Amino acid sequence: MSRFFSDKYAELKAYVPGEQPKKQQYIKLNTNENPFPPHPAVVKAAREAAGKLELYPEPECTELRETLAGRLGVSPDELIMTNGSDEILNFAFMAFCDRHIPAVFADITYGFYPVYGQINLVPYREIPLQEDLTIRIKDYFQSAGTIFIANPNAPTGIALRRDEIAEILQQNPYNVVVVDEAYVDFGAESCVPLIREYDNLLVTQTFSKSRSMAGARLGFGVANPEIIRDLKTIQYSTNPYNIDRMTMATGIACLQNDEYNMENCRTIMTTRERTRDALEKLGFEVTPSKTNFLFARHPDISGEELYLKLKERGILIRHFSVERIKDYNRITIGSQEDMETVVRVIGELVASDK
Amino acid sequence: MSRFFSDKYAELKAYVPGEQPKKQQYIKLNTNENPFPPHPAVVKAAREAAGKLELYPEPECTELRETLAGRLGVSPDELIMTNGSDEILNFAFMAFCDRHIPAVFADITYGFYPVYGQINLVPYREIPLQEDLTIRIKDYFQSAGTIFIANPNAPTGIALRRDEIAEILQQNPYNVVVVDEAYVDFGAESCVPLIREYDNLLVTQTFSKSRSMAGARLGFGVANPEIIRDLKTIQYSTNPYNIDRMTMATGIACLQNDEYNMENCRTIMTTRERTRDALEKLGFEVTPSKTNFLFARHPDISGEELYLKLKERGILIRHFSVERIKDYNRITIGSQEDMETVVRVIGELVASDK
Repeated sequence: MSRFFSDKYAELKAYVPGEQPKKQQYIKLNTNENPFPPHPAVVKAAREAAGKLELYPEPECTELRETLAGRLGVSPDELIMTNGSDEILNFAFMAFCDRHIPAVFADITYGFYPVYGQINLVPYREIPLQEDLTIRIKDYFQSAGTIFIANPNAPTGIALRRDEIAEILQQNPYNVVVVDEAYVDFGAESCVPLIREYDNLLVTQTFSKSRSMAGARLGFGVANPEIIRDLKTIQYSTNPYNIDRMTMATGIACLQNDEYNMENCRTIMTTRERTRDALEKLGFEVTPSKTNFLFARHPDISGEELYLKLKERGILIRHFSVERIKDYNRITIGSQEDMETVVRVIGELVASDK
Repeated sequence: MSRFFSDKYAELKAYVPGEQPKKQQYIKLNTNENPFPPHPAVVKAAREAAGKLELYPEPECTELRETLAGRLGVSPDELIMTNGSDEILNFAFMAFCDRHIPAVFADITYGFYPVYGQINLVPYREIPLQEDLTIRIKDYFQSAGTIFIANPNAPTGIALRRDEIAEILQQNPYNVVVVDEAYVDFGAESCVPLIREYDNLLVTQTFSKSRSMAGARLGFGVANPEIIRDLKTIQYSTNPYNIDRMTMATGIACLQNDEYNMENCRTIMTTRERTRDALEKLGFEVTPSKTNFLFARHPDISGEELYLKLKERGILIRHFSVERIKDYNRITIGSQEDMETVVRVIGELVASDK
């Protein structure tokens, strides 16, 4: 820390993303990337956009919002595009929390929420998940603060139903409820259809997982136009041109071929269920995931040991050194072939550990 | 504003970027874009990066920082890459200002500085430029706060010399001085060579102007490693993957062909001087610009009138409805051909106005 760093951040602990190894070749199942490349039209769009890089991007993202609105069945003024969903989440902390309006979220959820609280000097309250790692919706009724729910939750993979979220929305008429749907396309119910019924709902999504575009940094928010206007005020007060020309063009091309993405999601879900069955046969306890990852623990091998032994063998998964979930690991669903390799190696480790 | 928007932003006025017309064809000289397209290697790099979009970018931007460090003659740990220079400027407001450390900048300068103050709840003090729109460096000695100096300044185009900035640095040993060099490559002296002498110096630059990459959103900060570490803490607490794969790859390719960019800058500077001569012959008073724009006023035609009449004729320039500079317009230097057209049309307007 330099001698100039503001005291207000004395306690700030920055987020630590999953390892992004630069050199060694791993089977990389630690950051929930999609095993399928983007559609060829995406590559073509990038090349075309790069030829015009001397010009600023259009900051309203008009064509991209129109295309996305068509896919989601909403209006373009119910959408804001951001630099990954990390940016829309931070905007939500900025717009709808302050020192009088705390943030409220689960104790086990996306690890960035506490960091957003700290960087925005917003107090936050963590609500423990139940023993089985599920959310008890009553714990979120009449909350004094802005609620953040990752649905499906990460790293547990467990989803609430839409009608359960609707109950939370009903029971919080005076506060915003942010539903972070980063993983929703892998089998959970989206709350996008609820935005006209609940003016306190903000849904966030990303192109990173289900649309094979983690490298493009494209996320978005869906809500009634007033919430969106507030978020645009934040955008225009921090970084009006937050989406670059190439990301914008690839996003449009990606959506124009969205059936390709959704087909890939179905393949990943099939691979997920096969992998789950195989892990359960090896003695693992696996949460009922509606995401592109599994969250699993084994009675005979610690989470950290499994993580380290797999890393030695060229397989990266994600371990969280958080007390409540230290026995678990989060394993991204890659290609069917990679998952068969992983299951085989894990099987060898479990057998040799007995 | 929704009923949920935090009271803390009740007074917030978002930044208004220059118009980005969607349809009508203009000679567009209002946002200081470079008239030259990026080098062909940039387009190739974008295409290659787009093929791997399913993977997250490497958040440390290692190769990009190494390449840039080589160009600037600094070390990679003296660099941080950001989503445009708007992001690094906002990070600097976050890291080095708070309610006890105000921001200090000129009354006429980049219009985003007051917005950064407001969004970060940071008080700010505006120091009037002198009558001739130059900065009096003594006004910045012993400042109680973090200093932001656009050098060359915008929209005046006027630059301080490096030794003048060094005096300001010497006279502010306890505060950070941010030198915003968005336009430095068009003839001004960069302060990058001062970063090892002054641990209170942060230089910010962008690929948007001199490197024909406004559409890619790539900026950076140069400072001693401690200042850079603070800024990375902010990055990792808001948006760790702030630079996407395509922007990263195009940035590297752009730097590998930097002589192309610097040759374009020289061409733009030649066009600027020719345009200045022509405008002065038409009776304009033009500031001594070291940027890719001119800032000019005419005794017989108001700034707003000239702006509107040019717009009618298909030429977009930038007018600021700020009292002190309302007689002026900011005119980006485009291609030699476009500037000849502009000078001809302006000549007709000035003649008909007499």
